[in-house]
Amino acid sequence: MTIYKAPVEDVSFLLNNVFHFDKYNNLPGFADAAPDVRDAIINEAARLSEQVLAPLNAVGDREGCVRHDDGSVTTPKGFKEAYKQIAEGGWLGLSSPPEFGGQGLPVTLTQTVAEFQISANMAFSMYHGLTMGAAAALLVHGNAEQKALYLPKMTAGEWTGTMNLTEPQCGTDLGLLRTKAVKQADGSYKITGTKIFISAGEHDLSENIIHLVLARIEGAPAGIKGVSLFVVPKILVNADGSLGARNGVMCGSIEHKMGIHGNATCTMNYDDATGWLIGEENKGMQGMFVMMNEARLGVAVQGLAQSEVAYQNAVAYARERLQGRALSGPKATDKPADPIIVHPDVRRVLLTIRAFNEAARALVMWTALKSDVAHRSDDAKERQIADDHLGLMTPVLKGVLTDVGFSNAVLAQQVYGGHGYIAANGMEQFVRDARIAMIYEGANGIQALDLVGRKLPRDGGRAVMAFFAEVGAFAKEHGGDEAMKPFVTPLSTSLSHLQQATTWLMLNAMAAPDNAGAGATDYMQLFGLVACGYMWAKMAKVAQDKIAADGATPYLTTKLVTGRFFAERTLPGTALHLARIQAGSGTVMELPAEAF
Amino acid sequence: MTIYKAPVEDVSFLLNNVFHFDKYNNLPGFADAAPDVRDAIINEAARLSEQVLAPLNAVGDREGCVRHDDGSVTTPKGFKEAYKQIAEGGWLGLSSPPEFGGQGLPVTLTQTVAEFQISANMAFSMYHGLTMGAAAALLVHGNAEQKALYLPKMTAGEWTGTMNLTEPQCGTDLGLLRTKAVKQADGSYKITGTKIFISAGEHDLSENIIHLVLARIEGAPAGIKGVSLFVVPKILVNADGSLGARNGVMCGSIEHKMGIHGNATCTMNYDDATGWLIGEENKGMQGMFVMMNEARLGVAVQGLAQSEVAYQNAVAYARERLQGRALSGPKATDKPADPIIVHPDVRRVLLTIRAFNEAARALVMWTALKSDVAHRSDDAKERQIADDHLGLMTPVLKGVLTDVGFSNAVLAQQVYGGHGYIAANGMEQFVRDARIAMIYEGANGIQALDLVGRKLPRDGGRAVMAFFAEVGAFAKEHGGDEAMKPFVTPLSTSLSHLQQATTWLMLNAMAAPDNAGAGATDYMQLFGLVACGYMWAKMAKVAQDKIAADGATPYLTTKLVTGRFFAERTLPGTALHLARIQAGSGTVMELPAEAF
Repeated sequence: MTIYKAPVEDVSFLLNNVFHFDKYNNLPGFADAAPDVRDAIINEAARLSEQVLAPLNAVGDREGCVRHDDGSVTTPKGFKEAYKQIAEGGWLGLSSPPEFGGQGLPVTLTQTVAEFQISANMAFSMYHGLTMGAAAALLVHGNAEQKALYLPKMTAGEWTGTMNLTEPQCGTDLGLLRTKAVKQADGSYKITGTKIFISAGEHDLSENIIHLVLARIEGAPAGIKGVSLFVVPKILVNADGSLGARNGVMCGSIEHKMGIHGNATCTMNYDDATGWLIGEENKGMQGMFVMMNEARLGVAVQGLAQSEVAYQNAVAYARERLQGRALSGPKATDKPADPIIVHPDVRRVLLTIRAFNEAARALVMWTALKSDVAHRSDDAKERQIADDHLGLMTPVLKGVLTDVGFSNAVLAQQVYGGHGYIAANGMEQFVRDARIAMIYEGANGIQALDLVGRKLPRDGGRAVMAFFAEVGAFAKEHGGDEAMKPFVTPLSTSLSHLQQATTWLMLNAMAAPDNAGAGATDYMQLFGLVACGYMWAKMAKVAQDKIAADGATPYLTTKLVTGRFFAERTLPGTALHLARIQAGSGTVMELPAEAF
Repeated sequence: MTIYKAPVEDVSFLLNNVFHFDKYNNLPGFADAAPDVRDAIINEAARLSEQVLAPLNAVGDREGCVRHDDGSVTTPKGFKEAYKQIAEGGWLGLSSPPEFGGQGLPVTLTQTVAEFQISANMAFSMYHGLTMGAAAALLVHGNAEQKALYLPKMTAGEWTGTMNLTEPQCGTDLGLLRTKAVKQADGSYKITGTKIFISAGEHDLSENIIHLVLARIEGAPAGIKGVSLFVVPKILVNADGSLGARNGVMCGSIEHKMGIHGNATCTMNYDDATGWLIGEENKGMQGMFVMMNEARLGVAVQGLAQSEVAYQNAVAYARERLQGRALSGPKATDKPADPIIVHPDVRRVLLTIRAFNEAARALVMWTALKSDVAHRSDDAKERQIADDHLGLMTPVLKGVLTDVGFSNAVLAQQVYGGHGYIAANGMEQFVRDARIAMIYEGANGIQALDLVGRKLPRDGGRAVMAFFAEVGAFAKEHGGDEAMKPFVTPLSTSLSHLQQATTWLMLNAMAAPDNAGAGATDYMQLFGLVACGYMWAKMAKVAQDKIAADGATPYLTTKLVTGRFFAERTLPGTALHLARIQAGSGTVMELPAEAF
């Protein structure tokens, strides 16, 4: 019942006109993504998402996954065939190293493809998304043998991957984990314990599943410093790559949950399962962080993607649904009522969503490009600058894009009135699916603490100062341009709020860290608004220049109106966040726990 | 898995100390609700809600309602027995006229009871909630014979009631409705048509269901001016009150929807069903408005109630869940980690919800008292003032309490982390159930338009001016009181924002009504914030006086801290709403529909 059309024109504008993708041709892989190649990739990704994945979204929600008594799990009808197309099309290996069968293309393209796939079918896309995250951790921290054994199959999508962190008593605080690893004479480990909330932990899409598992080696220090990372295949792999015996890991149950029913969320029971250490003993968090950072950007894209598909459906409904007459007088005089898109309040809702989506897409692409530079440049300084950006923006994107993505899905559902509450119309599935993105890969409160407690002070605030400098320089350069004032003036104000908030935190959070905690979420939201405002100002400048050079198009005109809407109605939210941050932790911490 | 404890102490504080319930003893019914009587009622309502209704909330969600081939509908296990207790306990007739078997008590008490019942089980409470709304319409617009025939049974809960407005092609715009009524020789009408989204349209809780149905009499004018209201019993009622033949109305299907699974949302097919006109021909909207206004306040209470129960569960979880250590150093040193309620960001979330709930509860009680005065006072001027308030605040309460109630349920769910996404923990049900309250009885965008387009200009702005005068007078009276400054200073600022917004609308919306439409939702939210801020200032004053007189209690201390939190962090949102309103409709209306 829902529709989806990949935003190819917007992606093309960003890649070519805003971020000048071809300027990066000195980096490995970029030259391989010449305009015709990347157009082909984007168009084919759009086609697959629209025609293969989107039609399975509702059935995935309705059928969900089924666990059988033997611990095996069946995915919804059609998932297996669709997964085969994704794997055989080489989509998992788009950015993977060619030595393991990948195409070595920029992750910037991979994130674009990911947006399309997740809009079309979020629950489905998690199967290969997690595989790519697990492969990334193996690539960075695995040894040569492990890489050779697992990466080609994972890159080809023949085997999928998982991340096993959470246990019943530990989520955020991984130092509490109890799963234990006992070293064996042959250098392997026996892993025993229970992991919960394991996405894609068991399913029927691939012949093997490669679990990356955090566990504690016997005798290791307590807390996070005694945690190690292991690779634990569902089916043991022989040295020649062929499949051997079933390993001691089973899916004990699957969760009945609010959404993403098409993805199996498993309790995984490890019972003397054979695993191999990845990286060094007690340094498991390093490998996990590679996966988590990769995954956090992926989850940010989930927020954007659900917001985008919900928007498209709300627009279609608002154009079709006839109800009431325009306040300024009837418009569709040949019909019994006007389409509800004539109503200012409906348009306000639609523009709120759209203005966020386009800024969020730009933010994802900007950050993905920095990720490419950080990983591929041969210039150490360039790598450092890009890596600073990546570290700073990862929690902002994860937190803000998923918070707003969810609330946008709710707004889009509202456009449908009562019909939005009915399962068959699909809008409520977007809401339920989008909800998880605010929670997993570090709940958004944790993202805010990561931003304020870790990313902000790191290297003497180098990353945030670079961000301020870049946005400030843009505002200075274009502040005198009359046409740019509707974008630059509010951007400057919001940047000033962010700078004041940053100063306040520096002055007040060192001595009393609760001040950082009490303001963290507002700081993250404030940061996100400024970053979106900057993206809008950049996009507006490009659109204005293109119109001046080649004349207006509907796309460019719409871009400018949408950007003005953002500057008028969304960006002014920064003042409220600043006020909340400056309120400090007084009332927040005053009550004893029993008073709540 | 969830808990619920009715907020009896807070209700008592509001009734006795803030609103001085006993001052209204000159009104019919109030003297019957002397302190001991109302305590008994409130405590018994609490007990029933906590012990009978709450345990059925999860099972209602899980089982849902089932329609059988003969059109009959079975409610979830336990609902029938619980409904019997509610009906036999006389809870439907608490405020109904004694002549029809009611107890004639103030609706202020009924709304308090409603909050408890809806917190405990929203889907269940709709069965009797809708009955009370339908009975109210019959009471006001029915003739003597109709009242005698239906009201005693409805008051006793032996028969339930419904509202039949929506059709596939019409929801908000009831002028589009097609259900037709053909007058018969005996004065009755034959009703034919299809109604959708009929809550409690068919079920097994009562022996008869009294449908109130909007339909168009043959030959009536087009649009809303040709709509009449009919009473159409599921089973025809003989003159002596006994049940006769089955009427021509059937449940054609029940909806699969996002939440409130325990309530049957039906498509009702009317096929030459026998109905009787309520009130005058073509004046059906008058009767419907009685039901709708009643229902809108009831839906506002749903927003509060879901926010309250979600809050209570989030608090319980935050006290128990051990994860991480306090930023200021470990607190539970005997445990492997601190309970997460030590974390400022968790407390911020909890206080955000709590500060809203307590203001919302005060707003509901304030408005319910005005409703009692409007309906029971023998002083015409007093009735008019109260009715002005009721008309003004109904859309504000419906829109704001359900918008914020939903977002609070989402916040509470977030406290649970991944466990909040799991069905068995119950938090996601609160979110799904709360979602509908933003939609039905007039989607919240419609509430905003009702406020801005109808309630604001009515009688030359008399109602809103009275509101400004009352809040302004309070601020003036207590503005010099040092202890009250944390409450009064932000209240004065927010009131000034509301007044500026009102002036802006007056100056800009007459000539260009799109300016009203584009700002309506922000105006409603701004109004709600000021109203909540006023409630907080009133409550703070009472709490301070009580502490000065009798010493501090944990309840009163917590009240003041929570109120300060609201003043510091929630109330400052008014500036953002004002900025958005003043942005006008320019960018909102600029794009053609096809550009979205």
